[in-house]
Amino acid sequence: MNLKGKDIISIRDLTKKDIEYILKTAEKMEKSSDRPLKGKILSCMFFEPSTRTRLSFSTAMERMGGDVIGFASKETTSVAKGESLKDTIKTVENYCDVIVIRHPKEGASRLAADVSKIPVINAGDGSNQHPTQTLLDLYTIKKEKNRLDINIALIGDLKYGRTVHSLVYALAMWDAKITLVSPEGLEMPREVLGDLNRFNAKINETDDIETAISNSDVLYVTRIQEERFPDPGEYEKIKGAYRITLDTLKHAKKDLIILHPLPRVDEIAQEVDDSPYARYFEQVNNGVPVRMAVLGLVLGGVR
Amino acid sequence: MNLKGKDIISIRDLTKKDIEYILKTAEKMEKSSDRPLKGKILSCMFFEPSTRTRLSFSTAMERMGGDVIGFASKETTSVAKGESLKDTIKTVENYCDVIVIRHPKEGASRLAADVSKIPVINAGDGSNQHPTQTLLDLYTIKKEKNRLDINIALIGDLKYGRTVHSLVYALAMWDAKITLVSPEGLEMPREVLGDLNRFNAKINETDDIETAISNSDVLYVTRIQEERFPDPGEYEKIKGAYRITLDTLKHAKKDLIILHPLPRVDEIAQEVDDSPYARYFEQVNNGVPVRMAVLGLVLGGVR
Amino acid sequence: MNLKGKDIISIRDLTKKDIEYILKTAEKMEKSSDRPLKGKILSCMFFEPSTRTRLSFSTAMERMGGDVIGFASKETTSVAKGESLKDTIKTVENYCDVIVIRHPKEGASRLAADVSKIPVINAGDGSNQHPTQTLLDLYTIKKEKNRLDINIALIGDLKYGRTVHSLVYALAMWDAKITLVSPEGLEMPREVLGDLNRFNAKINETDDIETAISNSDVLYVTRIQEERFPDPGEYEKIKGAYRITLDTLKHAKKDLIILHPLPRVDEIAQEVDDSPYARYFEQVNNGVPVRMAVLGLVLGGVR
Repeated sequence: MNLKGKDIISIRDLTKKDIEYILKTAEKMEKSSDRPLKGKILSCMFFEPSTRTRLSFSTAMERMGGDVIGFASKETTSVAKGESLKDTIKTVENYCDVIVIRHPKEGASRLAADVSKIPVINAGDGSNQHPTQTLLDLYTIKKEKNRLDINIALIGDLKYGRTVHSLVYALAMWDAKITLVSPEGLEMPREVLGDLNRFNAKINETDDIETAISNSDVLYVTRIQEERFPDPGEYEKIKGAYRITLDTLKHAKKDLIILHPLPRVDEIAQEVDDSPYARYFEQVNNGVPVRMAVLGLVLGGVR
Repeated sequence: MNLKGKDIISIRDLTKKDIEYILKTAEKMEKSSDRPLKGKILSCMFFEPSTRTRLSFSTAMERMGGDVIGFASKETTSVAKGESLKDTIKTVENYCDVIVIRHPKEGASRLAADVSKIPVINAGDGSNQHPTQTLLDLYTIKKEKNRLDINIALIGDLKYGRTVHSLVYALAMWDAKITLVSPEGLEMPREVLGDLNRFNAKINETDDIETAISNSDVLYVTRIQEERFPDPGEYEKIKGAYRITLDTLKHAKKDLIILHPLPRVDEIAQEVDDSPYARYFEQVNNGVPVRMAVLGLVLGGVR
Repeated sequence: MNLKGKDIISIRDLTKKDIEYILKTAEKMEKSSDRPLKGKILSCMFFEPSTRTRLSFSTAMERMGGDVIGFASKETTSVAKGESLKDTIKTVENYCDVIVIRHPKEGASRLAADVSKIPVINAGDGSNQHPTQTLLDLYTIKKEKNRLDINIALIGDLKYGRTVHSLVYALAMWDAKITLVSPEGLEMPREVLGDLNRFNAKINETDDIETAISNSDVLYVTRIQEERFPDPGEYEKIKGAYRITLDTLKHAKKDLIILHPLPRVDEIAQEVDDSPYARYFEQVNNGVPVRMAVLGLVLGGVR
């Protein structure tokens, strides 16, 4: 297993063994206070806003002894002067040992990886891929449930929510039983589903939220964005119907856990935060060891 | 005296002994080149612009061997996506060991401290509190005058200038004699004054600037903001009347010192910078050891 | 040769010996993994967008073990509140050991150096000076050609392109033979040319691009900005005429090298990137050792 020098653009670039290895390494990272990346530099290139991803990659790098440079918005860069992404990458690769990139355009991270001589990690390209989010989702499920062949319900916007496409793909490798619940028009894309057939994935779609929840070990909730609806009235109705409250959870299994990639707006009521089900802040915390593992492995500082 | 794990939200959370301890620790920090915060991470969460506070906290952390992550404007964060402050804090607290926060809303820092499991330091919440500014003001006075029971005149906007509310509160503990000079409508709020009675504070208000200055050991000047005046003509008149020039200072004590929290616009004439009275750039310099002390104490790296 | 404590505002502040010394030090930096700037802090004050300069200074500082604070846009600073540049500098100088500044106003960096008690490095002030760009240009030529008395053609906007003014000045010291090719209205300013007479500089101007290229060892291309032309049609025509393609290069010397300060828009066709002539990405890479040398020398960490 050697991920040194590898780009991490899509969860689909990783084998099941790769993923298992990353998760095992992340576990080690939780207890480690070594600084194996001393003298290494990460460049965070964020062409779009981010709190979680940028800060957790930064902290992951610094906890391992490395340094961080970069930008948090394209306005402070030469992109404003009309520079191509290729030229920006061929410049920045000279200043660092690894690049983490977030970009609004689908495929931008793959392009970056193709032109770069150093490893590139995709931190979100449009509504496409965000592989380290998937890795931390898997890590959280594994840590909480001690297995990945769980019953999981995914609820909310399954069309544009980039994290869920990668997550179902990965879970299918471990024979998870996956239930999809989404408003009309925001269903999981056919291409994504079609792609899962080769794993004999156990997937069913329903609009019966309560039953979906009552059968699940894990509930994965995503944000429904207002701008997807031409009619604000329609949005309000949908938002209400897909909102998780203590009441929605009344038939949940005792050991159900609820995940959410965050940011949350109000698709999970605040009252749920103090319930025994909530695990979304533990999930966000797991982003650090997972990203330490990814950085350590692609830089060869960790084995 | 143990400030480890403590939030620093308002100067009022600190006892006289706490403050004395912080000032004594700051003094040690000036000579120290130890790096007791190695491996620790500070997150600077600035929802409003700042030069001084953000950079001096960053430098304080780095001089002690620690690292810094964070953001300098809310535009680069998930707040743009509608995330609550509570969720943002419950995310960021996972990435660091201490949080420094500036926010436009009064009470935001207290809320942050309430939800956070790690120490939170308030770097300004609206026109409310900015405790490390008060600490560095006190440190500067102590360093220059070797005591805190001084005669001090505060001049300018005493209503909205957040730094002066905390400063008079703190000085009252040391029996300073405080003279307040402000334009009509920008007087020190009654609540703040009322609050000082329990210290038997010696406070008087006047509009005789010259006499106020001639009696003072310390002159503390604040900026009068144009937007407080509906009528630009009125603003110009007031601004002129409260401006400190060499002429205004002609009856000052020989060893008067002038402080200003900065940024200055033109409430102190540039000609004063080269006078023996000016200490505002020394004051800004003192922000570093004071913030080193605060970070070191709440993180337990310094005793 | 002692550059410790020196400001680097214009290439004209440096003697031929100074420059040679910096280039020699940069060469050493390429192989060094020492961390002589541990405990030192650089403040990057960028009042204008930058990718290359800000990131390469940051990486240079971090590779030498130092830390970086600062800002990437003026919107996040107190300048928004009306603070003067002088006050901003007299504040920030307390937080760091060296300042790198980019500012839209000509002369701003000189002003900063005049008020600052620590070294100031100009990273571009309007269309005026950008000395570390010139140093890295010279370093690249020296590294590629092993000498500086080369035949060089400068093509494009020679009026506003700040990098070319400093470059011709510096090359004149080494008796380079300089050919200038620019559209009408964007010629090298008379003042710059006049200034070169004291070096007996060998300069000629032409509009015959092909001959200029065929005689050259080095081709230095600059961006022609649309906003310089009142008429968009005129701009398109000019842009096309001064664009470097494989065809333009058909009579080039076998060992011609092409440089560009970047960002490029399309004044060099992408097809040229893979030709044996292209050296602009090597050039950008050379920014790191050159800035390591400059930082190390002015801070006294490197001799």
